[in-house]
Amino acid sequence: MNSDILFMPHIFFNPKSIAVIGATNNPKKFGNAVTKNLLKTPQLPVQLYFISKGTKEINHTPTFLSIRDIQDKIDLAIILVPAKFVESVIDECILKQVQRIIIVTAGFGEIDAQGKSLESIIAMKCRSAGIRVIGPNCVGIENVDIGLNASFIQTPYKGNISMVSQSGSFGGACIWEWYEQNIGCSKFANLGNQIDINFIDILKYYKEDKNSEVIAIYVEAIKEGRDFFNELKEITPYKPVIIQKGGRNPTGLAAASSHTGSIATNYNIFKTAVEQAGCVLCENMPDYITALKTFSQLPIPKGGRIAVSTSSGGSSVLFCDHAENFGLKLIDFSKTFIEKVRPHLIPLVKYVNPLDMIAGATEEQYYIVTKAMLEDPEIDIVVPCSLVPPFMDFEPQAHLRGIVRAWDETHRVKPVIPLMVFSEGFQEIKDLQKKSHIPVFFNPRETALAAKFLVERMNFLKRFQS
Amino acid sequence: MNSDILFMPHIFFNPKSIAVIGATNNPKKFGNAVTKNLLKTPQLPVQLYFISKGTKEINHTPTFLSIRDIQDKIDLAIILVPAKFVESVIDECILKQVQRIIIVTAGFGEIDAQGKSLESIIAMKCRSAGIRVIGPNCVGIENVDIGLNASFIQTPYKGNISMVSQSGSFGGACIWEWYEQNIGCSKFANLGNQIDINFIDILKYYKEDKNSEVIAIYVEAIKEGRDFFNELKEITPYKPVIIQKGGRNPTGLAAASSHTGSIATNYNIFKTAVEQAGCVLCENMPDYITALKTFSQLPIPKGGRIAVSTSSGGSSVLFCDHAENFGLKLIDFSKTFIEKVRPHLIPLVKYVNPLDMIAGATEEQYYIVTKAMLEDPEIDIVVPCSLVPPFMDFEPQAHLRGIVRAWDETHRVKPVIPLMVFSEGFQEIKDLQKKSHIPVFFNPRETALAAKFLVERMNFLKRFQS
Repeated sequence: MNSDILFMPHIFFNPKSIAVIGATNNPKKFGNAVTKNLLKTPQLPVQLYFISKGTKEINHTPTFLSIRDIQDKIDLAIILVPAKFVESVIDECILKQVQRIIIVTAGFGEIDAQGKSLESIIAMKCRSAGIRVIGPNCVGIENVDIGLNASFIQTPYKGNISMVSQSGSFGGACIWEWYEQNIGCSKFANLGNQIDINFIDILKYYKEDKNSEVIAIYVEAIKEGRDFFNELKEITPYKPVIIQKGGRNPTGLAAASSHTGSIATNYNIFKTAVEQAGCVLCENMPDYITALKTFSQLPIPKGGRIAVSTSSGGSSVLFCDHAENFGLKLIDFSKTFIEKVRPHLIPLVKYVNPLDMIAGATEEQYYIVTKAMLEDPEIDIVVPCSLVPPFMDFEPQAHLRGIVRAWDETHRVKPVIPLMVFSEGFQEIKDLQKKSHIPVFFNPRETALAAKFLVERMNFLKRFQS
Repeated sequence: MNSDILFMPHIFFNPKSIAVIGATNNPKKFGNAVTKNLLKTPQLPVQLYFISKGTKEINHTPTFLSIRDIQDKIDLAIILVPAKFVESVIDECILKQVQRIIIVTAGFGEIDAQGKSLESIIAMKCRSAGIRVIGPNCVGIENVDIGLNASFIQTPYKGNISMVSQSGSFGGACIWEWYEQNIGCSKFANLGNQIDINFIDILKYYKEDKNSEVIAIYVEAIKEGRDFFNELKEITPYKPVIIQKGGRNPTGLAAASSHTGSIATNYNIFKTAVEQAGCVLCENMPDYITALKTFSQLPIPKGGRIAVSTSSGGSSVLFCDHAENFGLKLIDFSKTFIEKVRPHLIPLVKYVNPLDMIAGATEEQYYIVTKAMLEDPEIDIVVPCSLVPPFMDFEPQAHLRGIVRAWDETHRVKPVIPLMVFSEGFQEIKDLQKKSHIPVFFNPRETALAAKFLVERMNFLKRFQS
């Protein structure tokens, strides 16, 4: 392990001091958004300095006119001034001997040849000075572990996913959805035009970072393809890597090229390579979220034998359709299992898989059946299907509460993949999810896809077992 | 047009009087859920009667011990008593000369041979008496136009979709999602075991019903395939028909058979037939919702030429990927268009499609660009892409508000398909959606799929133009 390489992105995520160049109290400027995000964590273990031409005081502290006016050592400078001022600000950063720079400002290589040439000059100057750079044309980075949001986008919940995204907006959109679904994040980086720090640098850091248990990538174009794939190959035996690629066909490629100024890669070659490297490649955003939700919150099963319970016939029928399409297998229930649950269910129930407990099934029945499935040595993956019960005196979260109890009492050893059809809108479900750290799946296809992801990961990991 | 056939399902949805047999104040019973739903509309133009063994008074009115104790004529009886009592209740209904019956109670043909035989006897008795029956084993029906909820599931918003579902829970789940996304419903029917009224009866009614502008079907098995497909063929030139089928492969078939006791159909034959009949067949629940959202709220375009605007590069790149996969075409902007919008955008903007207005794009810019696109004779479909702006002093609904204004000022003649990535969780978006009756799409694939649905419907309708 090359400690230099590791060391490099580490300071971006763990600086002792940050200078925000272009900080402002004007709420219509990105400089303000970054400033506010940095100030949101009261106990942030980072010394902050604000450099501003127009704002005299930020957070009750006088601003500086230049980074050179700051006495202390600066680990990280975040540059938010308009593109035409960036080069001179970089010169000052070099004189100040800052260690790392993030250039948020857009208007460089993604725009025209002049911007391209300007960013090359900046890259060269920083390289000569031994300064590593993220950007330009990016939203910034975050280290949620320590409450550092050095970006103009929102802060996710603390968790175990670390993301590197070529698109800031894709990353930002994911963070909202993580927030909605109580999915947690450790590190976030948006790389922009990548004049220096690239995917491989960040991946090397995430590979070694213990809080980065699941790696999320959004990429539109890769410059050093072979190194990228080799890096992925090194990570996947230890951590699941989830990828989505933008710019997959001529229309998307054209849009991607206009957007980041980078040359995109042939999708079929890309697909083959990342799948060979053991990554999960998703073709759309909902699948990507499903993969992250699954791997960040569920254990890998020991086998692929699935048991389904339901109080909603239609939902489990559709789950079965998707499960078979994904090559998954439902088991037949053993006599032991049937005898265990029969006393707790109504006489109408037939003991086939999916086990349909009929529309009025209770929290207690979900608890008993889910637990019996989790305890059954012939079952590897448990899929309780339900709607938020819309009738009688059920609370919306009743069924899920029974499922959580069963999962907790069996120490969460096996994956449980609860399908609560279209329950996204229920605050009670969100609250229980947040409290219990259980993922909830919202439609039959998503649920089957989660099972498929887990089974494929299990099979992949088996390759490394002697 | 056969007025008898039309007349028949009409009374189910527009009865003058309803008798609820098995009504109760016990909140743990389905009878209570149906009772409460019926009582929810204060001005319901239906006389309600409650028949109960255990509850003396419902809604401050004494209950009846038998339907025969009611003086007035009963158009519709809803049966909620346990399966073993249903036959004798049916006998009383026949004596009372009720016109229509809904049997909610489960435990018939879907369970075993005995249940099958019992439901045959009931069917025969009702047929002899000239009574039409929905069910058994169903959640009931709704006519949202008049506020009638004769089911134990929730009431949707008023709207133009009429649904017939073989699964009550699938229907109920859809209604939640419609509620979340402000999609409105006219009629809802869950058919259960279909001992009498079947899909074709309901479709004939929806075909003629003027408020049923979009038809939604969830089916697991069809008995009279040819009649069903012929019926669909008659409807599709006038109204879009959206279908999802459960039980598509052996695993799903087995689950479906256990759930409704019906024999399922070969999916490939089904698919070919419904697509030939001009229906939209969806393979999963999110696509089904997307289709209903699209057809219930957007006009059919005159052509397939798409223009995209964005402040989120990644999102529009992914939209383009999906659009090309779906065979859709982005146009090049005309000189006129470019000159019209250029004064309002920042200098960094490049005038290619997607038109990237860069991350700080304002409500006003979305308004101007969307309007210019809607007014451009070379553009048929307008796709504004955005995130809920997470920075600066934007309100979450700012971009959408600009889009709505442009759509309103151009009289909603062309479809506008706003992509607001992962904005489901924002109440401000929901409120604006509800107020403005504009659909919002939540990920790039969904957005491209909506455009595909519209273009395919346009092409289908062209067949009928001379």
